[in-house]
Amino acid sequence: MTRKWHLLALGLVLGLTTVCASFVAGFYSHHEIASRRLQQLIQEDPYAYYISPKIYKVFSFFRTKDEADHRLRQIMKYGFPGLDDLRLYSDFVLSYDRRNRVAHWVCEHLQVDALQSGQVSRQRASYRPDLSVPSNFRSTLADYHRSGFDRGHLAAAGNHRGLQSHCNETFFLTNIAPQIGRGFNSGAWNKLEIYVRDLTLRFGSVYVCTGPLYKPKQRTGGKLSVEFEMIGLNMVAVPTHFFKVIIVESKLPLGKPYMEGYVLPNTALPDGLNLRSFLCDIREIEHYAGLKFFDGIRNAIFASNYPRESQVFRDFG
Amino acid sequence: MTRKWHLLALGLVLGLTTVCASFVAGFYSHHEIASRRLQQLIQEDPYAYYISPKIYKVFSFFRTKDEADHRLRQIMKYGFPGLDDLRLYSDFVLSYDRRNRVAHWVCEHLQVDALQSGQVSRQRASYRPDLSVPSNFRSTLADYHRSGFDRGHLAAAGNHRGLQSHCNETFFLTNIAPQIGRGFNSGAWNKLEIYVRDLTLRFGSVYVCTGPLYKPKQRTGGKLSVEFEMIGLNMVAVPTHFFKVIIVESKLPLGKPYMEGYVLPNTALPDGLNLRSFLCDIREIEHYAGLKFFDGIRNAIFASNYPRESQVFRDFG
Repeated sequence: MTRKWHLLALGLVLGLTTVCASFVAGFYSHHEIASRRLQQLIQEDPYAYYISPKIYKVFSFFRTKDEADHRLRQIMKYGFPGLDDLRLYSDFVLSYDRRNRVAHWVCEHLQVDALQSGQVSRQRASYRPDLSVPSNFRSTLADYHRSGFDRGHLAAAGNHRGLQSHCNETFFLTNIAPQIGRGFNSGAWNKLEIYVRDLTLRFGSVYVCTGPLYKPKQRTGGKLSVEFEMIGLNMVAVPTHFFKVIIVESKLPLGKPYMEGYVLPNTALPDGLNLRSFLCDIREIEHYAGLKFFDGIRNAIFASNYPRESQVFRDFG
Repeated sequence: MTRKWHLLALGLVLGLTTVCASFVAGFYSHHEIASRRLQQLIQEDPYAYYISPKIYKVFSFFRTKDEADHRLRQIMKYGFPGLDDLRLYSDFVLSYDRRNRVAHWVCEHLQVDALQSGQVSRQRASYRPDLSVPSNFRSTLADYHRSGFDRGHLAAAGNHRGLQSHCNETFFLTNIAPQIGRGFNSGAWNKLEIYVRDLTLRFGSVYVCTGPLYKPKQRTGGKLSVEFEMIGLNMVAVPTHFFKVIIVESKLPLGKPYMEGYVLPNTALPDGLNLRSFLCDIREIEHYAGLKFFDGIRNAIFASNYPRESQVFRDFG
């Protein structure tokens, strides 16, 4: 009789355990499937990626391993400078200013390997409007035609040599802004772009954020006012300045990360000017652009030398 | 013997069913708990709310009932005009322009009941900076002091009479823009605000989106250029115009929804001007503001009369 009771008790315990285990398995399965789907979404949608830390808290019953090494995460490693109309391209991320028909910012991550693969040609790429922008906010080729301005790249074509499609995407007009040609786009601005690639070749990994500024000027009477031209039927703003904010993640032994910002006026600049003369405090760029750069790194690694002094590569020729 | 086998088979089937049921119960529990937590997040974070339809697809194993009637959903019923720096206040939603230190847009939902409860006093409210905006992008009282401009409300204080705290929040400087006082803030703009409340009293439910414009002007030589002043140490932009886009959801029997837009120049306007003379095509406001209004409703109810003709209350005195 006791043996029978023992067996029944054992059976009950086993049964309950199985029921509990099944429940937990079901609970965990839903967690797993949902978080896998979520990771898919996060890789494709910048807003989903931005909000993902909060979404993951919703799933906090189990530790969520969200360590997928997708391109969006790589490029946006140090946070979003702003959140207006985010757009993910295959090798850069962009925030579009629908009011001015020019991007707010474009973020890129340059790596030495991709830079050195040279199968890509600019000649096979062509400027074209980005049809994913609603027509009311889109700039077109006609806006630039005979405007007197160059179609200047924000994410430089020369930074995206890994695949032809990467290079082609830099020719979308969302990544283009009206720039003075001689003395700027083909002058100092080009030198700055080459400098960024040189940094990459030397240090291995470089993050760049590029965008326009619309800086105010002092008027007679001491008043400040912003003034800029608009070109074409779609009214594309002509920025008064352009900025680049750069982080170098040195891969050299004992290399420290560095951060620096440049602001160049959108005018014909004399040849032979030293790029160093365009160095600018990053907090000042942030103020004029209304953006916040590399929020993540600043609190961590850069805590000591930011924002009082912009880091300069004094030793870099 | 057969009876024993039957019993064993029955036991097995019962056991398996229990295991499956427990698994499904576990699966469903996770779904339920996660989606309840998600709904909490969605009520507090505008970006989470914006992305929520995509997030809910991640949970599409069961039908998710997300019909919680929270304020964010009520106010943003017709979609977000833009996505830059979204801010949720208790009775309005705002997108902040960090570059100009003035909002991009403020959305409100006016209802007749809240308007008629009159326990609220403007006198108990005071202008104050919104400390949740990073200092580099924040406007302060000092910026407006002796600037020659009024601190003009975007979401009107008089629209938020339900609770004193609702009224107080309209005095945050994020909801304030530099406006010409005499002839504008206390003139035509005030008339427009009263008109919106009159619409609410008459029709029951009104959605308003208010914001600044920085419109370009024709220069000599035919070039277009944008020009606007900036005031104070923090450089707060002085908009050239202000807009209001209005949807009336008539609660009258057989009442149809209407949509109309107004643009007023930020200058001293003569008394006695008819508000009708400031009516503006909504697509034109969208072009200058870089915003898209009431996306949801337009595809549905407004399909027939938008955007070719702005709807006017011709019968409304």
